[in-house]
Amino acid sequence: MSESSTPPEPCDLLIEAGFIVPVEPHAVVLSDHAVAITGERIVAIAPREQARARFAPKQVVSRPHSVLIPGLVNAHTHNPMTLLRGVADDLPLMVWLQQHIWPVEAAVIGPEFVGDGTAFAVAEMLRGGTTCANENYFFPDVQAAVYKQLGFRALVGLPVINFPTAWAKSDDEYFDKAGQVHDAWRDDALVSTAFAPHAPYTVSDANFERVRMLADQLDMSVHLHTHETAQEVADSLKEYGQRPLARLDRLGLVNDRLIAVHMTQLTDSEIHLCAERGVSVVHCPESNLKLASGFCPACALVRAGVNLAIGTDGCASNNDLDMFGETRTAAILAKAVANDATALDAPSALRAATLGGARALGLEEKIGSIEVGKQADLACIDLSGLESQPLHHVLSQIVYATGRHQVTDVWIAGHRKLAERVLVDMDIDRLIANARQWRERIAGISR
Amino acid sequence: MSESSTPPEPCDLLIEAGFIVPVEPHAVVLSDHAVAITGERIVAIAPREQARARFAPKQVVSRPHSVLIPGLVNAHTHNPMTLLRGVADDLPLMVWLQQHIWPVEAAVIGPEFVGDGTAFAVAEMLRGGTTCANENYFFPDVQAAVYKQLGFRALVGLPVINFPTAWAKSDDEYFDKAGQVHDAWRDDALVSTAFAPHAPYTVSDANFERVRMLADQLDMSVHLHTHETAQEVADSLKEYGQRPLARLDRLGLVNDRLIAVHMTQLTDSEIHLCAERGVSVVHCPESNLKLASGFCPACALVRAGVNLAIGTDGCASNNDLDMFGETRTAAILAKAVANDATALDAPSALRAATLGGARALGLEEKIGSIEVGKQADLACIDLSGLESQPLHHVLSQIVYATGRHQVTDVWIAGHRKLAERVLVDMDIDRLIANARQWRERIAGISR
Repeated sequence: MSESSTPPEPCDLLIEAGFIVPVEPHAVVLSDHAVAITGERIVAIAPREQARARFAPKQVVSRPHSVLIPGLVNAHTHNPMTLLRGVADDLPLMVWLQQHIWPVEAAVIGPEFVGDGTAFAVAEMLRGGTTCANENYFFPDVQAAVYKQLGFRALVGLPVINFPTAWAKSDDEYFDKAGQVHDAWRDDALVSTAFAPHAPYTVSDANFERVRMLADQLDMSVHLHTHETAQEVADSLKEYGQRPLARLDRLGLVNDRLIAVHMTQLTDSEIHLCAERGVSVVHCPESNLKLASGFCPACALVRAGVNLAIGTDGCASNNDLDMFGETRTAAILAKAVANDATALDAPSALRAATLGGARALGLEEKIGSIEVGKQADLACIDLSGLESQPLHHVLSQIVYATGRHQVTDVWIAGHRKLAERVLVDMDIDRLIANARQWRERIAGISR
Repeated sequence: MSESSTPPEPCDLLIEAGFIVPVEPHAVVLSDHAVAITGERIVAIAPREQARARFAPKQVVSRPHSVLIPGLVNAHTHNPMTLLRGVADDLPLMVWLQQHIWPVEAAVIGPEFVGDGTAFAVAEMLRGGTTCANENYFFPDVQAAVYKQLGFRALVGLPVINFPTAWAKSDDEYFDKAGQVHDAWRDDALVSTAFAPHAPYTVSDANFERVRMLADQLDMSVHLHTHETAQEVADSLKEYGQRPLARLDRLGLVNDRLIAVHMTQLTDSEIHLCAERGVSVVHCPESNLKLASGFCPACALVRAGVNLAIGTDGCASNNDLDMFGETRTAAILAKAVANDATALDAPSALRAATLGGARALGLEEKIGSIEVGKQADLACIDLSGLESQPLHHVLSQIVYATGRHQVTDVWIAGHRKLAERVLVDMDIDRLIANARQWRERIAGISR
């Protein structure tokens, strides 16, 4: 062999896995391969024996009974709300919001709640193989600092909403603060910012126009809940004489910056408009089901060429940050909604949960697949357990029969964040104790 | 205290739990209670301190951070098919059946496959808190023997189908063998039998009449797939001039013996007929979604007074035996289907997965709730982990944010089957090795 005559190349880490699903190329499962990492980047993907011959790694992680996948991208979440997990369920939307979520939020929201909730959510996400979040909540400055400190990749939404909150009191204050937070993070490798106008029914035309202008000038994404319910569409027709997407189009927002979340109410022409303009749609199936919002036509979107991503939404309406469960729900629900058992097959569902999310967030050049030159954002899933047998098809197994507790190891930008199910630089006992403390505080408010 | 003057009563086992959800009474969470067990039965449920004072148990299991629930009842499964987990996915129903499932089954089906698959499924079910299965497959004699040997509770279906299989070659042979298996197990405490005519489109009027007569004479349930797809209903109208339920009614089968599985296609009058006659409906939401069969109106059924149970269906169309995941899917899907976020709330979903299943199987006097006099079929769920915090509402947490891997301990008829996540009397390594061996054998057939 000619390899033996050349000296081995140094690398920081070699991860050897029984299987690797790189996502790109599509639907491929590599057996007995290895990924070589130097610094924050993937430098090679090769058959195990070749990789061993070629590299002299500082560290080797060997997982012969596992599959290595790109870290999952949770493309829509309200992470601080993890502290409100299950605080109120099984209620009509307006009772849920007005009598439970909003009063609790009014009492607790602030830097402490947002910081604690974000850190708690990071721990849950890491333990479930998620390495990047598209965040949408108040106090983005606090969130950004927590993500950075914990080495977690995030696109942090800068809220814009037509009423005063603890974060800002006026339109100008929302935009001023958005500008400041964007400026503080614009050169960061892990944390970046997007505009997050709340929804068509809570943002005025004037504010949408301001968002459009700034997003264009500053090259930012626009993260927006829309077409979530039939009521939203009906209200928009009444107030503006247009469906929300038509109104957004009039305001110049229907383009490849738009991260459109929920989208349960769509006509064929709206689906094709999204495809033409490069809109990304974030499907949050469990939240849509639990709040009885409707059914996103996930398969029709993909077949029309729309980039599909997957999000958990917040824990108050899910009630977890489990991207395995969410991806599985997306894959099976898409079939019933399309009346077609071939809809959103396992490789396509996993693609939506990884590369689709990366593309939605404008990060497809950096993350979302296991490719040379990309960031080493990776999750390793143990397939040795009883529930993973017989292992007829790895991709089916990942999507249709894997629990997040099977994630053993996670890396973000080459840094190990979970090692054999242990959080590397977070104190889990302290996180749990802190969450319990929030339970006591919230129990005093919510009923 | 007067208790101190009376000598303590002996009991075999006292399980102390941070929370107990007895299911009956409905929607109750008992804090810091204990369940006392003697032999196979529950003899008391009391606050922990009272129970400690009253009983002198041979064994105490203390779980201060856990919730004790009735063992889950998987009300429709084809357990031997666990060995076909993920063998073919994302295919149209007829391609899936004709080109994958049936050829594989034709090659492997027999006592060895059925016995190995049943044992493997028992291990998966126990590790997920399921203590009773409503089984529907071939070789019920083999299944029954395996369930009995492993101490697992089951209602074993006696197949009737209008074509020859490895189990029987003629109508008479199906009924002869059914009679023999029923006779062999009619006095068993753990394993009993039901008729399992396959489906309206594979069973003739004459065979349904024979099933009706024998079920009445022998006091047996009738476990039947029906109204699974719109195609089934359309084909029945074409062939019989009646929808399947109307045809079954003409044949005398629409009564409280009927365990009607799937039921995705139902008119209001059919729902009310089921309620009036005491039919139990088994909802298999994940199979219905994955095969694009349709949406069972679970909430409308419950509100009409129909007994609702939950089943996973077989692992070839799910792809697991996870009753936690299935119950959660049922609860959230019901809301979207009913367009009502209050539909099938957490207590009702858990009730369907326990007492609803017990009632469907004719076992509501024995199992399905934690009540004095009932069998000690119990599952203990660890709520101490990060993903269970903050624990605002125990019932919400069980249904909306619990993974089956949180099940630590399981008892069936007072016998411990899972202890701190270890299978008590099954060799997990041998089970896994055996499943891998089946993977090799099946890989040689399926493509």
